[in-house]
Amino acid sequence: MMTRRTIEEFQAQRVAGNEKIFAQDHLGIKRFMRLDGATYEDGALPAKSKEMLGLVASMVLRCNDCVDYHLEQCVEASYTREEIVDGMNVALVVGGSIVIPHLRHAMFTLDDLLADTKG
Amino acid sequence: MMTRRTIEEFQAQRVAGNEKIFAQDHLGIKRFMRLDGATYEDGALPAKSKEMLGLVASMVLRCNDCVDYHLEQCVEASYTREEIVDGMNVALVVGGSIVIPHLRHAMFTLDDLLADTKG
Amino acid sequence: MMTRRTIEEFQAQRVAGNEKIFAQDHLGIKRFMRLDGATYEDGALPAKSKEMLGLVASMVLRCNDCVDYHLEQCVEASYTREEIVDGMNVALVVGGSIVIPHLRHAMFTLDDLLADTKG
Amino acid sequence: MMTRRTIEEFQAQRVAGNEKIFAQDHLGIKRFMRLDGATYEDGALPAKSKEMLGLVASMVLRCNDCVDYHLEQCVEASYTREEIVDGMNVALVVGGSIVIPHLRHAMFTLDDLLADTKG
Amino acid sequence: MMTRRTIEEFQAQRVAGNEKIFAQDHLGIKRFMRLDGATYEDGALPAKSKEMLGLVASMVLRCNDCVDYHLEQCVEASYTREEIVDGMNVALVVGGSIVIPHLRHAMFTLDDLLADTKG
Amino acid sequence: MMTRRTIEEFQAQRVAGNEKIFAQDHLGIKRFMRLDGATYEDGALPAKSKEMLGLVASMVLRCNDCVDYHLEQCVEASYTREEIVDGMNVALVVGGSIVIPHLRHAMFTLDDLLADTKG
Repeated sequence: MMTRRTIEEFQAQRVAGNEKIFAQDHLGIKRFMRLDGATYEDGALPAKSKEMLGLVASMVLRCNDCVDYHLEQCVEASYTREEIVDGMNVALVVGGSIVIPHLRHAMFTLDDLLADTKG
Repeated sequence: MMTRRTIEEFQAQRVAGNEKIFAQDHLGIKRFMRLDGATYEDGALPAKSKEMLGLVASMVLRCNDCVDYHLEQCVEASYTREEIVDGMNVALVVGGSIVIPHLRHAMFTLDDLLADTKG
Repeated sequence: MMTRRTIEEFQAQRVAGNEKIFAQDHLGIKRFMRLDGATYEDGALPAKSKEMLGLVASMVLRCNDCVDYHLEQCVEASYTREEIVDGMNVALVVGGSIVIPHLRHAMFTLDDLLADTKG
Repeated sequence: MMTRRTIEEFQAQRVAGNEKIFAQDHLGIKRFMRLDGATYEDGALPAKSKEMLGLVASMVLRCNDCVDYHLEQCVEASYTREEIVDGMNVALVVGGSIVIPHLRHAMFTLDDLLADTKG
Repeated sequence: MMTRRTIEEFQAQRVAGNEKIFAQDHLGIKRFMRLDGATYEDGALPAKSKEMLGLVASMVLRCNDCVDYHLEQCVEASYTREEIVDGMNVALVVGGSIVIPHLRHAMFTLDDLLADTKG
Repeated sequence: MMTRRTIEEFQAQRVAGNEKIFAQDHLGIKRFMRLDGATYEDGALPAKSKEMLGLVASMVLRCNDCVDYHLEQCVEASYTREEIVDGMNVALVVGGSIVIPHLRHAMFTLDDLLADTKG
C-alpha cells in the first residue's frame, strides 16, 4: 500500500530542496527566499498572526507543502488545535469544497505535529 | 518503483480523513460538509447531471482527489465511458494543456472503476 | 456613476475581439478557436449538457466574460432559470465564497437574458 | 476617461446583487450565504482575526470585490492602516507580482475607507 | 455605452497606484517591488526573453493589468506583432479557452501600442 | 521512507497515460493533443524560446508533471542550467512563494536531467 508522507519526510525533503535552490547561487532567487523568511517576522502585525495568514493563504491556494510548513509554524507559535481548525474553516468557506482534500491532508499533519509537542 | 495510488487506497484515505475532519467538532466545517453532500442531490437539475458538473469543475480546478471522487460517482450514476470522456473534453478545452496530467490520472482511475463494475 | 456592462455591450466587444484574434491569422490560434467551438456540439453528451458544463467551469475559474457567454448559450438551449441557478450552486459550493461576486454578476446577466427571451 | 469604481458604488452593487441571489430562493445557495456570514463571527479565533484572514485569502485569490469587502470589514474591526498593509504584504509574497494590481486597487479603497472613518 | 480602458488610462492608474503602494513605506513591500523590477533585467537570459516570459505568465494567470504592462514592455523590447501573437498562442494552449477573453483584451492593447510606435 | 519519483518514472507514467488518452478515440481530445504538440514547433518565435515559455507557464500554474516535461524539453533544446534557473526566477517572482515547493521539485528533476546529459 502507498504510505502517507510523514511530517518528518516533508521536513527532510524541504531542507534538501532549499539547499539545492540556494546552490544555484541566483541573486534574485536568494533575495526572494530571504524576503519570504522576513515576511513572517514581527511587524505592524505580530509574527504569530502572520503565520496564521500564511496557513490560510496556503490552504486556499491548495498547496500541501505550504500547508504543512505553516501548520508546523502555527503549532510552534502555540496556536491551539481549536484555533488552527477555526482558521482553516475560513479557508474552506472562501476556497470551497475543492479545499476539502487539503483539509484532510492537514488533519493528518496536525495530528503528527500535536503528538510531537505532547511527547 | 513508485506505485500508483489505487482507487481503493484513495477511498480509504478519504474516509479516514473525513473522520478526522468531523472529529474536530467545528460547527462551521460540519455544516459545510453537509452542504457539500446536499449539493449533488436531485434539485432543479437531476443528481446525475450535477455529478458531471462536479467532475468537470474538479478537472479545471486540477484536483486529483476531487476528480477520483466524482469519477466514482459518475460511474455509479451509470454514465458510460464515452459520456465521461466527452465531459472531460470540455474540461480539457476550457482548462488547457495544464489539465492533461489530470486527464492521464483520470484515465487510470476510470479503468479501475469500470473494471470493478464489470467484475 | 459607473454603469454596469450590459449583455449587448459584452456581445459587441466579444465579436470585435474575436475578429481581431482571427485577423492575426495564426494557424495555432485559429485551430484552437475552432476546436473550442466544436467542443459544445452534440457528442456522447448532448450539446445542451455541455453548455451547462461550460457555465460551471467558467464560474469556478471565475471568468465573467465566459460566464456571460455560457449563460447566453444556456438560455438559448432552453434551460430554465431554476436549472441554471441549480447548476451555479454546484459552482458556488465547489469554488467557495470567492465565487460569490461572479454569482452576483451572473444574476444581472441572467435577468437581462430572460427579459430578452420573454420580449 | 474611465472612472474608478468608488467603494460606495461597490457597496450598492453588492447589496443589489445579493438581493438578486436571495430572490432565486435556492435552499443550497441561501445556506451557503448564511454559512459564509457565520464564518467571520467569534469562535476559537476572534472575529477580528478572521477578517484579516478573509482579506489575505481574497488577495491571493485575486478577487477585487472580495478585497474591497474585507478591507471595509477590517477598517470597521479597527485595524490600523499599518496592520492592514502588513497583512497585505503576506498576500503579496505568497501570491507574487500577479497580486500587485490588486494591491494597487486595495490602496485606493483603503484611502476611501480611512477618509470616511476620519470624517 | 461602457468604454474600453485605453492603454494610457491603464498607465496613469498604474503610476498612481504604485505611488500609493510606495507611500505606505512598508519595507517588505518596497523590497518586493524592487525585486520585481530587477527580475526582468539581463541575466543568464536576456531581458528581452524575460519580458516574453512575463507576458505568457500573465496570460495564463489571467491578469489583464499584467498583460497590458508586459505587452508594453514587449513592444518596447522590439518584438514584432507576429512574435507576440505566437507567444500568446502558447499561453492559450497551456491555459485553455478561459484565456480567450484575455486574448481579446490583449488584441486591443496591442493595436493601441503598435499604432503608437508607428506614429 | 517515501521515495521521490524519478524522471524516468514520470516519463513512463506519461507515456502510459497518453496511450490511454488516445485509446478513448475522442476526436476533440485527439485534436487538442496534436494542437498542443504543434504549439512548441518553430513559428514566429523559435521552438527553443517556446519551450521556456512552456516551463514558466507550468511553474506559475504549479503543475509538477508539466514542469518535469518542459524541463526535459529545455535541457534537450540545450538551455544551460543558468538559463533555466533564470527563467524559473521569473516564475517565482510572478507566482510568489507558493511556487517554492515546485521550484524545489524542479531542482531534483534538473539534477537528474543534467546528470543524464553528462553521462
